[in-house]
Amino acid sequence: MQQINRVAIVGGIHGNELTGVYLVKKFEQFPQLIQRSSFETFTLLGNPQAFKLGRRYIDKDLNRCFYSQDLHDPTLSSYEEHRAKTIYQQLKPPGKSPVDLIIDLHSTTANMGLTLILGNTHPFNLQLAAYLSSINPLVRVYNGTQYGQKSAVLRSLCELSFSIEIGPVYQGVLDASFFNKTEELIHVILDYLEAYNQGKVLHRSSAFTLYQYVGTIDYPRNKNGEIQAMIHPQLQGKDYEELNPGEPIFLTFENQVITYEGESTVYPIFINEAAYYEKGIAMCLTEKHQLTIAKREE
Amino acid sequence: MQQINRVAIVGGIHGNELTGVYLVKKFEQFPQLIQRSSFETFTLLGNPQAFKLGRRYIDKDLNRCFYSQDLHDPTLSSYEEHRAKTIYQQLKPPGKSPVDLIIDLHSTTANMGLTLILGNTHPFNLQLAAYLSSINPLVRVYNGTQYGQKSAVLRSLCELSFSIEIGPVYQGVLDASFFNKTEELIHVILDYLEAYNQGKVLHRSSAFTLYQYVGTIDYPRNKNGEIQAMIHPQLQGKDYEELNPGEPIFLTFENQVITYEGESTVYPIFINEAAYYEKGIAMCLTEKHQLTIAKREE
Repeated sequence: MQQINRVAIVGGIHGNELTGVYLVKKFEQFPQLIQRSSFETFTLLGNPQAFKLGRRYIDKDLNRCFYSQDLHDPTLSSYEEHRAKTIYQQLKPPGKSPVDLIIDLHSTTANMGLTLILGNTHPFNLQLAAYLSSINPLVRVYNGTQYGQKSAVLRSLCELSFSIEIGPVYQGVLDASFFNKTEELIHVILDYLEAYNQGKVLHRSSAFTLYQYVGTIDYPRNKNGEIQAMIHPQLQGKDYEELNPGEPIFLTFENQVITYEGESTVYPIFINEAAYYEKGIAMCLTEKHQLTIAKREE
Repeated sequence: MQQINRVAIVGGIHGNELTGVYLVKKFEQFPQLIQRSSFETFTLLGNPQAFKLGRRYIDKDLNRCFYSQDLHDPTLSSYEEHRAKTIYQQLKPPGKSPVDLIIDLHSTTANMGLTLILGNTHPFNLQLAAYLSSINPLVRVYNGTQYGQKSAVLRSLCELSFSIEIGPVYQGVLDASFFNKTEELIHVILDYLEAYNQGKVLHRSSAFTLYQYVGTIDYPRNKNGEIQAMIHPQLQGKDYEELNPGEPIFLTFENQVITYEGESTVYPIFINEAAYYEKGIAMCLTEKHQLTIAKREE
């Protein structure tokens, strides 16, 4: 069994997602809150310049700057590309022990509750997801990574890693209710890691629901790339609910309904996420899987 | 009685308030929607560059650039200062008829429903407010201007003017439900103006509620200006509801409750508006007045 020695809590990879920013600030002011006896926890503010300006990023999305080849490319020097290299050095300092686990704090304008986005399907990540799902019914587990796929997000730097994606939260707004829920979840996670290091097993259930990414849908656009329809009011806020072929997904400015033309039921998430307009994503589609995790060796 | 000949519908004075932007785009695509027989209606996209970048503004808040002295100051040349001068020229072209009425479309992350922000308390504006309140119970009427005060907002360019401020809407998100409600309200207003020009009186009620600005409250901050508390969960989303002395308004990061210490009941609005963090405003306080409008001469 691998011991966990260093844990990083990262907030504000996107400067206008204030929950993570202020949780990091709180933990920096009261470090005892995140101390546990068997491992070191440290915090990191992802994009301080973007936070200062109230923006997601300065030059480009920082959470798309962590491709291994980009981190070692000296020609990349935008603010975020530079910042990604600095964060990489802090998480994996040359000649010192790298961080063992990353908790990356995000928020979304979509109605995604308390979503755990897995860095990958490492058994440890799945165990933790099963545990968190079992003690908090608000927790949803999402896997956006395809097996073997290269990834540019922060959480791809570590095998043991995940993002906490909470919503709906407005960009540039601090929401006390989600702030408190996220902080509680972090404490539960740190306590779980402590128990794990001490050889205790915090099992409550080995079964949980995993939402697996299968694709995205963009807004209907004209030839200039301009949006021609909105998320249909019946779909707005219905993240993680089933969407069947033939059901409304968009409403055009001429009040025409556009329906979902897929072949099977899916579970859309990130519906109408503000930051994804520029990425050509109106929603991500997932499939719902019931997983049962084999008990860990003790 | 003054005839209304030219009406301007302005959207996207703030580039990340998409409802106004896309309503203007829709009206440009289908101009017959806003045509009426007795006046000309034209549309204007306030801040196209900020919209393109998904931001409220490029250099400074465009809706603080309309001071008369600034519009005539050739030394002011930031993107928004330049844009304000251009808009001013379009609304009040030299040697031509100026616009008679401005409808300025905005959205807020606060729970403000369909708010009509009066440009001033001109009897015409109050009549219209009374009419809209009477036919749509979701409409709230807010006056943020003190008598005789100079103003830097777009609606100060015209005596007959108001903003439509809808919320809660996420910055950078197009919400179909609010889009449709705002469009309906615009049609009601245009029909009202048409009837007015034709000497018909669309009275339903002469009594309505006016929320009058009395002040603002900032977030508690440390000496570096950093926020030390969040809007209390009990106050979040409670725009236009009564707030009494002694009731919670903030929750610090140490979970201390901060209460409202005013001397009388107020009705806060713009609670936790994303764009007001940088302005030092956690909420605006209003007093609630019941007004009865004298019937217009017919």
